[in-house]
Amino acid sequence: MTCKDNTKLSMNSKTTKIKASIITIGDEILVGQTIDTNSFWIASQLNLIGIPVAEIISISDKKEAIIEALNRELKYSQIVILTGGLGPTVDDITKSVLTTYFDDELILNNDVLAKIETYFLSVKRTMLEVNRLQAMLPQKADLISNDLGTATGMWFKKDNKDIISLPGVPHEMKGLIAKIIPQLKEKFQLADFFHRTILFQGIGESQLAGNIKDAENTCKSKNIEVAYLPATGLVKVRLTGSVAQSDFILSTLNDIREKYPQLVYGTESETLEEVIGKLLKKNKKTLGTIESCTGGALAGRIVSIDGASSYFIGSIVSYHNKIKTGIVGVNAETIDQFGAVSQETVESMAKNGRLKLGVDYCIATSGIAGPDGGTAEKPLGTTWIAIASADEIQSKKFIFNHNRERNIESTVVYALNFLRRFILKLN
Amino acid sequence: MTCKDNTKLSMNSKTTKIKASIITIGDEILVGQTIDTNSFWIASQLNLIGIPVAEIISISDKKEAIIEALNRELKYSQIVILTGGLGPTVDDITKSVLTTYFDDELILNNDVLAKIETYFLSVKRTMLEVNRLQAMLPQKADLISNDLGTATGMWFKKDNKDIISLPGVPHEMKGLIAKIIPQLKEKFQLADFFHRTILFQGIGESQLAGNIKDAENTCKSKNIEVAYLPATGLVKVRLTGSVAQSDFILSTLNDIREKYPQLVYGTESETLEEVIGKLLKKNKKTLGTIESCTGGALAGRIVSIDGASSYFIGSIVSYHNKIKTGIVGVNAETIDQFGAVSQETVESMAKNGRLKLGVDYCIATSGIAGPDGGTAEKPLGTTWIAIASADEIQSKKFIFNHNRERNIESTVVYALNFLRRFILKLN
Repeated sequence: MTCKDNTKLSMNSKTTKIKASIITIGDEILVGQTIDTNSFWIASQLNLIGIPVAEIISISDKKEAIIEALNRELKYSQIVILTGGLGPTVDDITKSVLTTYFDDELILNNDVLAKIETYFLSVKRTMLEVNRLQAMLPQKADLISNDLGTATGMWFKKDNKDIISLPGVPHEMKGLIAKIIPQLKEKFQLADFFHRTILFQGIGESQLAGNIKDAENTCKSKNIEVAYLPATGLVKVRLTGSVAQSDFILSTLNDIREKYPQLVYGTESETLEEVIGKLLKKNKKTLGTIESCTGGALAGRIVSIDGASSYFIGSIVSYHNKIKTGIVGVNAETIDQFGAVSQETVESMAKNGRLKLGVDYCIATSGIAGPDGGTAEKPLGTTWIAIASADEIQSKKFIFNHNRERNIESTVVYALNFLRRFILKLN
Repeated sequence: MTCKDNTKLSMNSKTTKIKASIITIGDEILVGQTIDTNSFWIASQLNLIGIPVAEIISISDKKEAIIEALNRELKYSQIVILTGGLGPTVDDITKSVLTTYFDDELILNNDVLAKIETYFLSVKRTMLEVNRLQAMLPQKADLISNDLGTATGMWFKKDNKDIISLPGVPHEMKGLIAKIIPQLKEKFQLADFFHRTILFQGIGESQLAGNIKDAENTCKSKNIEVAYLPATGLVKVRLTGSVAQSDFILSTLNDIREKYPQLVYGTESETLEEVIGKLLKKNKKTLGTIESCTGGALAGRIVSIDGASSYFIGSIVSYHNKIKTGIVGVNAETIDQFGAVSQETVESMAKNGRLKLGVDYCIATSGIAGPDGGTAEKPLGTTWIAIASADEIQSKKFIFNHNRERNIESTVVYALNFLRRFILKLN
């Protein structure tokens, strides 16, 4: 598997020499009950400030396993971040194991106790004795206050190494990581990296790498890292350099954006549905969908955005042809003559649907998502997407080559970018 | 964090004593680009045959990192499963590192070469020299044929330990794991476990544990493991015992099912949308949805099932009130008087929508998903769901207490189980 991101480790180790290890504690990962997403998040945040992760390990919530993992990882890494085992139940032994390991002792922290009491009042739940024990904390460790729960983060120091223990509940862990990252950055006097991400839809990773290879080579010659992060129908490209290189990075990305306005839909963590939402709000336009193969998934994606009600009016999921003819108003003859998956039908769905829903833009989808229904003439994955406005109808055919789930997902992202291009007159 | 599954490790270690380690190789995990889902899958499959996982580690695709991890894990575990680094690019060094580590040598395997050639013909892509090199394989290792890609699995044996190397592409890895699990089971003469899972909707984990505590205690007294696996709106309960206990396990689950028919929607890996689909197909009934807060997500879920077109007719996403009145046919006065999120409106949506779509059953949803729109009288998360058939309308109010995304997800699963209960007359 190619990993274009692996230049990063060498770049970082040149500039910093520090390394981190991540230890997740909990049998739920080892028995295959829970996917470890915490390590993924912590690794990504450490990498953003230039701290490479040497190793990620998941271990059992047993004393011996925790001690052995700590002994080992402290040999490799200056920073060890642990998650899990800080809850109030008997299984949660991380705090006591670490306190003993670092020759510390637990004392009642009245500030934390008051905070826990306030927390239980705010969520209107009864505070139990085990929750009170969560205010028993190691005396010498630095405490990192948890605004989203009752388990306090603990930062131990030993032999010039930093050992940080965080709760395993993802949103609590993330809240604490947001406090820790700036402190690590300051403590290790890490150079400020400058990151920018540019987002593409409608081009594969290899083809994109070919298209922008000159820019990539220039970046690499300046020691600016270029990382490709692919997903269904999407590729993210992230450039990482020094703060002094920020102007160069911005102008490089701007050049790419100007050269490929059809493909570049946004920057940083934007989603296509967000970008569409902003465009529609800005232009004071409304949107609706008429969906066959996507079956409501396209509308569902649009509605996932906060405040979608200011531009999204509604949708007709015309899965059965009788809805296409009956409610949407497609002529039965059109379907008879050309089929439900055809340019004629999908354009009629968009055009009639726009009037039925009373919207400025209407997207229509019709395709063969699979696993059945393909023919020699219209193979599995054949999908038509149309967009209608008051003045114009455009349509495109795609042949997606995946399973049902990914064919639907592909149709959704292609439809959203098609709408973006339609609105911006980039088709 | 409580992990009710941790009885499993002790049970397994009593019966088998063998342990496994999982090593995932690839910088994409360490830089926080990819979530490691492979380990999760492998751990779950090993646990199903009673092999506990001692440790999961993610390491860099560097020779030294692989060797060090192998040395270490072979001290703890009889079985080490590695994924990643078997692709055709220069980054993919796992095969050569392992071949050297086990004093083996790479030779051309003509059977594998023929298979790779056939594979490239079937996907209509040009075979490159690097793909030919994938047929160079260690002479002494047992090869595990990969039916879904070009990287062959390798099973090395050393000092009575088993070291298995698999590709990192998830569906290829899963295909190979399916071949390996029965071989491990036979080799280590593992007792046949008997697993059964029962699926609940509409009850929290703690409350469920209270309700079925007598059955759970009886199971535990017989050394039958009871594991709870919660998800949004759902809880799965898995019982694991010996094959000799299968009758007892089945009758225990049957008793629970008979006692809680409203809550138990299925068994094993069934989904609510699958269960609904089977019921509708069996009864030759059709379904449609009228969605406000779910915005198409409910229809999208129903349509995710293969063959949904035989019972799902369509949907109207009446996000804006003008669609509720205009297309669905709700009286504007009803919305004015009671609000869009009210029993009166949602029942009218279901009743009128059923006629518009021409379906046997129609589900309607209307709620305040957030983050805005809550009032003192109707707080955020207030949601009405109604179901109409030719003879009957039922409706229920819920107050979900999550963010927008989870409020929508909760509405979808509650609506699906509400329909199941409606059809089976369990409300």
